[in-house]
Amino acid sequence: MSKQMVEKITNMDADFAQWYTDVVTKAELIDYSSVRGSMIIRPYGYAIWENIKAALDEEIKRTGHENVYMPLLIPESLLQKEKDHIEGFAPEVAWVTHGGDEKLAERLCIRPTSEVLFAEHYKNIIHSYRDLPKLYNQWANVVRWEKTTRPFLRTLEFLWQEGHTCHETEEEADAETTQMLGIYADICERVLAIPVVKGRKTEKEKFAGAKYTYTIESLMHDGKALQSGTSHNLGTGFAETFGIEFLNRTGKLQPVHQTSWGFTTRIIGAMIMVHGDDKGLVLPPAIAPIQVLIVPIAQHKEGVLDAAYALRNSLKTSVRINIDASDKKPGWKFNESEMKGIPIRLEIGPKDIENQQVVLVRRDTGEKICVQNHEIDKRIQSLLQEIQQSIFAKALEHRVNNTNVAFNMGDFKEQLLDGGGFIKAMWCGAQTCEDLIKEQTQATARCIPFEEEAVSDACVYCGKAAEELVYWAKAY
Amino acid sequence: MSKQMVEKITNMDADFAQWYTDVVTKAELIDYSSVRGSMIIRPYGYAIWENIKAALDEEIKRTGHENVYMPLLIPESLLQKEKDHIEGFAPEVAWVTHGGDEKLAERLCIRPTSEVLFAEHYKNIIHSYRDLPKLYNQWANVVRWEKTTRPFLRTLEFLWQEGHTCHETEEEADAETTQMLGIYADICERVLAIPVVKGRKTEKEKFAGAKYTYTIESLMHDGKALQSGTSHNLGTGFAETFGIEFLNRTGKLQPVHQTSWGFTTRIIGAMIMVHGDDKGLVLPPAIAPIQVLIVPIAQHKEGVLDAAYALRNSLKTSVRINIDASDKKPGWKFNESEMKGIPIRLEIGPKDIENQQVVLVRRDTGEKICVQNHEIDKRIQSLLQEIQQSIFAKALEHRVNNTNVAFNMGDFKEQLLDGGGFIKAMWCGAQTCEDLIKEQTQATARCIPFEEEAVSDACVYCGKAAEELVYWAKAY
Ligand SMILES: [Zn+2]
Ligand SMILES: [Zn+2]
Repeated sequence: MSKQMVEKITNMDADFAQWYTDVVTKAELIDYSSVRGSMIIRPYGYAIWENIKAALDEEIKRTGHENVYMPLLIPESLLQKEKDHIEGFAPEVAWVTHGGDEKLAERLCIRPTSEVLFAEHYKNIIHSYRDLPKLYNQWANVVRWEKTTRPFLRTLEFLWQEGHTCHETEEEADAETTQMLGIYADICERVLAIPVVKGRKTEKEKFAGAKYTYTIESLMHDGKALQSGTSHNLGTGFAETFGIEFLNRTGKLQPVHQTSWGFTTRIIGAMIMVHGDDKGLVLPPAIAPIQVLIVPIAQHKEGVLDAAYALRNSLKTSVRINIDASDKKPGWKFNESEMKGIPIRLEIGPKDIENQQVVLVRRDTGEKICVQNHEIDKRIQSLLQEIQQSIFAKALEHRVNNTNVAFNMGDFKEQLLDGGGFIKAMWCGAQTCEDLIKEQTQATARCIPFEEEAVSDACVYCGKAAEELVYWAKAY
Repeated sequence: MSKQMVEKITNMDADFAQWYTDVVTKAELIDYSSVRGSMIIRPYGYAIWENIKAALDEEIKRTGHENVYMPLLIPESLLQKEKDHIEGFAPEVAWVTHGGDEKLAERLCIRPTSEVLFAEHYKNIIHSYRDLPKLYNQWANVVRWEKTTRPFLRTLEFLWQEGHTCHETEEEADAETTQMLGIYADICERVLAIPVVKGRKTEKEKFAGAKYTYTIESLMHDGKALQSGTSHNLGTGFAETFGIEFLNRTGKLQPVHQTSWGFTTRIIGAMIMVHGDDKGLVLPPAIAPIQVLIVPIAQHKEGVLDAAYALRNSLKTSVRINIDASDKKPGWKFNESEMKGIPIRLEIGPKDIENQQVVLVRRDTGEKICVQNHEIDKRIQSLLQEIQQSIFAKALEHRVNNTNVAFNMGDFKEQLLDGGGFIKAMWCGAQTCEDLIKEQTQATARCIPFEEEAVSDACVYCGKAAEELVYWAKAY
C-alpha cells in the first residue's frame, strides 16, 4: 500500500451494503476489472480461499472421495437432456458460439454446474455394482449470467467444489447427502466460526433436477440470511435420462442413485458479513492468512527491530506470523491490521524489551494482554483458540437474538421491519402460500430445519393445517 | 475396474501414437467426453496433477510469489489492446456472444492466457517503486481453439499456472525470468525425472508480445521434442500499452518491467512419453499417487490378508501405499499395477510370512528383491530414491544418444529419418533459413541453449556465417 493513511470505511449500521463494498476493497480482498460482474481475487482474498479449500479438501478426501476434472464447456444438446435441469439453468448460462473465426455447428455453454458431464462419464465407467460407489469431486470455476452482482456474494464467475456421487441404493445416497451437508456445517462452524441451521429446501427452492436439497443457512450481521452450502439427492432422475445403469447383486440392470453437493467462494462473503465490524474484517484464526502481526514500537531505537525479527523467527513454525517493519507510523499499522482482520496484533517496544514482555491485542475485542516472553508461544496458541470460539459464540448469540416466531403475517412483516433475522413460522406445504409470502415480504423459505419443531397448528399465511416449520428470511 | 483381464496395449515401437492413446485410457488417466478436444481427467490422472501442482506451488511460494485469481472472460477490446498479443491469440480463442437469451454488446473471449487482465489490474495497484515488485501467480484453466487435439498434449482446455510479475528494473525482470525457468527445470528433473535443455526461443518461436522467451525442452521416447515450460521477459511492452507506470526512486514516472511464465498439464503427457514402456506407465516415485501396491499371494490362506493389512498400516505414514485385496488373480493385479506405473509392487504370501520377508518388484526394471521384515520400511525408502534416479538417468541417456550434430541439410534430414531426436546445428539468425528448414523437414528451432557451443562456423541451411547453435527437432 502506498497510501499514508488507512481510509475510513462506512459505518456498518449506516449503510451495510456500502460497508461491505468498502471492506472487500480496502482490506484488499478483491479488485474490479473491466469484465462486468467478475472480480479479481487479490492475494489476501485468495490466501483465505486456499485455507478454506485445504480444510474442506481434507474432509472430502478423508471420507473417501477422489478429485477429478471435467471440461469447462458443455454442448447445448448435452445440457438439454435433463428437462428440469435445463429449465433451471438455461436463462443464466454463457454461450460460446465461435472458435477463432469459425462459427460452431453447435453452441457450447460454460458450465453453470457439471451434473450432465458427470452423468455422461458415469454412463461410460459404471457397469456393475462392483463399480459402485463412485465418489468424485472437482474444484472448478463456473459461470452464471447474473444481472446484478456483488463481490463473492453473486458474481458471473465463481470458484467452488462440486461433488458428484453414484450409489447402489437409495439409502446410501441419502446417507451421502446427509454426510456432505454435515461436513459443510462442520467447516462453517469449526473453521469459519459461522453457526448454521441445517435443513431441507422446499420444492420451490430445491436444485433443478434433484429429488431433494439439503442446505445450511447462516445469518448475517444485517439480519439477512445466506445459503452457505447445499447437498442434493438427485435420486435416479439423471441416471434414467442418461442411462447410468448397473447390473445389481441379483443380476438385474438398474439406474444408480446420485448426489451432488457444492461449496463456493460465496462463503467468504458470509464470513465478512458475520464477523466484520466498523474497523473492517474480523478473520477466524483457523483461516486467517496472517494470525499474528508484529508491530514494532519506536522501531528506530536500538534493539527493537532485532527483537521483533527474533520473535518472528522463533514463532513462525507454530503460527502464521508477519512483521510490519515499514516506515509507517504504528497507528497506521494498527488500523491496517484491524482492517485486514488479523486476529492478534503483537506490540513490542523498548519498554517491553526491558520488561521481557510483549503486548498482545485481540482484534475481536480490542483487549490488551501483557505476556511474559517465556509464555508468548503458549499464550498465542490459547488466544487463537479463544478468539475462534469467542467469535463463533458471538455470531450464535446474534442469530439466537434475531430468530423469532411469527404466528400470523402481521407478526411476520413486523419482524422483517424490525431488523429481519430468521422468522420461524408454520407452513401448510402449498406453494401458493410460499409464493405469496415472497411476493408480499421478499422473504423466502430458507429451510425446513432437521430439528423439527411445531410452534402452532396453522399455516402462517392461510391458516390451514400446518405441515412443517419453516425458517423464513430475506436472503443474499 | 469390472473387466477380468488387463487389456493389451499397442507396442510402442510399432505405433507410438496408438500406444500413447492406449496408455492414457487404460491406465485410467483420462476419458473422452462429448466435448470435442476436451478431456476428463480421471482420479488417477488428477492425483498426479495434484502432486505436481503441490511441488511447484511450494517453489512458487518459497520464492515470494502470491497466488491470485483473475476472471475467466476477457472483453474483446481489452484483448485487442496489445497488437502482437492479439495477433498471436485471436485465431485460437473461444468467443462468448450470449449471456442467457441476451446478445452481448461486446464479445468476451475465454482466456487463452491472462497477460491483459494482469496488466489492467497492475495499472490500478502500482503507483510507486514502493509497490514493486509484484509477484503474482494463478492456477487456472485456459482455452485455445486447437484443430487437432490429443489428451494432455494439445487440448481445447488445459490446466496450468501462469505467473505474472512487475519489476522496477530490467535486471530484476531478467533475473526473475531466469529464476522461474530454473524452477521449472528443477521440477522436471528432480520431481518428474525428465531431463531438460534450457535455452532461449528464436524470435519466430517466442511468445506473442514478449521481449524474449526462455524454454525448457525435453525429448520423448519416439525422438520428438516437447516444450515443457516457458518463461517470458515481457520488457516494458505491455506496461507501455496499458500504462502501468510508477514513480521511481528519482521521482520520475516510468513503465514497469514484466515477466510471465507457465507450466501446464501437458507435462503429464511428457512424463508418459519419456518413461512409459510396453507394459504401460512408469511413474516417478516423487509424484506417483500410489508408490507401493501390496499384492497378497494366495490371499485365501489364513493369515495372508491380515499380514498384508498389518504391513499397509505400519507403512502408510511413510509411503503412499495401497493394497489390492480384490478377488482378481495375482497375475491380473501385477499387470494392472504395471499399467498404472506404480513404482514398487510388494508381494506377500504364506512362504514369505513363514520366512519373515516380502518380495519387492521394481516397475522400471522388473527386478525382484527379497527383503527381511525389519528392513522393509528402510528398503522401500531407498528403492524409491533409486528408481527416481534410475529413470532420470535412463531418460538422460536416451536424450544423449538421440542428440546429434548436423553440419549440412543432408545430415539434418538423415538424422530426422533415423529416429529423430535433437539435432544440434548452427544457424545464421535469418528467419528465412528457419522457415525453410521447417518447411522442408517439419523440424522447428526448439531453443538456443544457455550452454553455448559452436560446432561449426556456417549456417546449416545457407552456409553463411553462423551466429548461434540451435537445438532443432520435430516437436509435439
Ligand atoms: Zn398455507
Ligand atoms: Zn542461414
